[in-house]
Amino acid sequence: MDQNSSTAVLFQSRVLEAFVTRALGAVGLPVSDADHVARLMILADLRGSDGHGIFRLPQYVRRIRAGGMNVRPNIRVVQETDATALVDGDNGMGHLVMRFAAEVAVEKAQRAGIGWVGVRQSNHAGPAALYAMMPLEHEMIGIYMAVGNANHLPPWGGIELLLSTNPIAFAIPAREEPPIVLDMATTVAAYGKVKTKAQRGEPMPEGWMIDALGRSLTDPKRAEEGFLLPIGGYKGYGLALAFGLLAGTLNGAAFGRDVIDFNKDDKTPTNTGQVIVALDVTRFAPVEMFKRNVDKVIREMRDSQRMEGVERIRLPGEQSHATWLERSADGVPMNETLFKDLQRLASDLGVGGLS
Amino acid sequence: MDQNSSTAVLFQSRVLEAFVTRALGAVGLPVSDADHVARLMILADLRGSDGHGIFRLPQYVRRIRAGGMNVRPNIRVVQETDATALVDGDNGMGHLVMRFAAEVAVEKAQRAGIGWVGVRQSNHAGPAALYAMMPLEHEMIGIYMAVGNANHLPPWGGIELLLSTNPIAFAIPAREEPPIVLDMATTVAAYGKVKTKAQRGEPMPEGWMIDALGRSLTDPKRAEEGFLLPIGGYKGYGLALAFGLLAGTLNGAAFGRDVIDFNKDDKTPTNTGQVIVALDVTRFAPVEMFKRNVDKVIREMRDSQRMEGVERIRLPGEQSHATWLERSADGVPMNETLFKDLQRLASDLGVGGLS
Repeated sequence: MDQNSSTAVLFQSRVLEAFVTRALGAVGLPVSDADHVARLMILADLRGSDGHGIFRLPQYVRRIRAGGMNVRPNIRVVQETDATALVDGDNGMGHLVMRFAAEVAVEKAQRAGIGWVGVRQSNHAGPAALYAMMPLEHEMIGIYMAVGNANHLPPWGGIELLLSTNPIAFAIPAREEPPIVLDMATTVAAYGKVKTKAQRGEPMPEGWMIDALGRSLTDPKRAEEGFLLPIGGYKGYGLALAFGLLAGTLNGAAFGRDVIDFNKDDKTPTNTGQVIVALDVTRFAPVEMFKRNVDKVIREMRDSQRMEGVERIRLPGEQSHATWLERSADGVPMNETLFKDLQRLASDLGVGGLS
Repeated sequence: MDQNSSTAVLFQSRVLEAFVTRALGAVGLPVSDADHVARLMILADLRGSDGHGIFRLPQYVRRIRAGGMNVRPNIRVVQETDATALVDGDNGMGHLVMRFAAEVAVEKAQRAGIGWVGVRQSNHAGPAALYAMMPLEHEMIGIYMAVGNANHLPPWGGIELLLSTNPIAFAIPAREEPPIVLDMATTVAAYGKVKTKAQRGEPMPEGWMIDALGRSLTDPKRAEEGFLLPIGGYKGYGLALAFGLLAGTLNGAAFGRDVIDFNKDDKTPTNTGQVIVALDVTRFAPVEMFKRNVDKVIREMRDSQRMEGVERIRLPGEQSHATWLERSADGVPMNETLFKDLQRLASDLGVGGLS
């Protein structure tokens, strides 16, 4: 989606949610499940994660119709302790599986101080931040890790795509300031950004991708010949590997060569692995004191001396929070291409379109 | 230390441990504490973390003599649940505090599946890997985060040094392969590497540091004018911030402007914050199966196609493991400068030197 497009039309989030609920209901999700997924997908759009919101609806519908996702999953805890759980998502939509897992993590943390919940047989769940943020309303810190749904990264020094952009997210509550919400891929650029550059016919900056000979690759149309670069070279490779072992291998989910490319294959279950951790602040410090101290850190950073030409020092999550406020009031912008795709989808499914 | 120096002499680890024990005993540590610290410091040397091992002894002794570290600390749990604990290190040596914290984390994980232990009033504890690896022998995964002991990093877009290179380490057990041990600073280069370049009179590669105008800085003698670059730009800044809030602020330890530069100030307690997490593999998967799967991932990466000119695809921790094997057999190399420094220290303290 192109936020700068002059043809973008604004839609109220309620309208978009209702549309997603209709579409998912039409392919067999129970209404309450469709509604949960819709809220999370549109929350992604409200926060500015345009590549992870309603933009994904046609792909999700395609996968469900192809039998690649289970619309009536039996999402359940298969093993647990007071502070840990392993959840089997039964190949349900990732949003439902992760919403369930986050609830389990918060319950565990309420009793034991921490809840670490691993997930297998899940699916793409949208932005990492959505789930890391769920413990916030319980005065808890959230951490989320996931195995991505297509490999775009070789091990450091290699040229075979064995790793995904495996993301991590942290959400840490503040008092008067918006929470710190860090949501990042372990590559310099996410693959979605490469696609956007290709659509716009713009070159990529150096440092996003290299080709198989290790040379800088800046033509996004040649993206298939190259691979994304991990942050900090071998460090980002190490992080992608560690998150993959924790979110994938430990939970019995796919990692490495077993990861399918869910953009090209709609049928094979992805067996996506994820982890959500909820950590109860009160077991370490009085909540108000902690939040005041987080505010203090935030202001220390923001008010510190800036490099020439820099207008504002930002904190992780600040921009998404501002976008959320703005779009909650004014609506979510949608470009012409996506609008047409969604209208075509509505007509395919025999449900009311966007208007 | 310069491993390539032709003047390097090899010392058996037992000899180095005994020396450190004598030195720390001479400044007031009980023998068993001095011995614990000595083993961990020399383990750092054995694993090739030369800047975090015996090299630090003169600085530790200086700090203890200046009253900046407590040689008889009452290290204790001040708050706990079945799965979490907050430890106050009473300004003891970081090695002792973290050894204690790791034991608590493992005990919690044995009962509750996970132990998350935050630490305050601690000190520099050497390489992150040492502590992340402690849960390994209990068939557990270890995670460690810390606030560094000097700020070398501004927030992204800023020029004030408000962040340290806040490291993270992950240790994940394998079966026939050495464990995956990732130990990394959130900056492209650790500050120690800059110092080494300065000592050798070599320029730094581009991408390690920038100056206050945002220009690349490659002269290590001008390091004081510039700052380290975080991995992945704003992403590494976000990670340094998140680890700092979790290891520092949450535990009531120093973070941000409160962090003193322990290289320049020997007296003020550092109030170092750290976190150790132990996660019991058996609560998610049968241990042997999990370890076999980790082996499989390791071999998949190592045996995959290499970029032209790359001899071997490495896994995190592989090099340190090889160094540990080699130095355990042959001894730890020590250069002339460090040897003389340590002999001078021995004579100052009135203890037997290295021979």
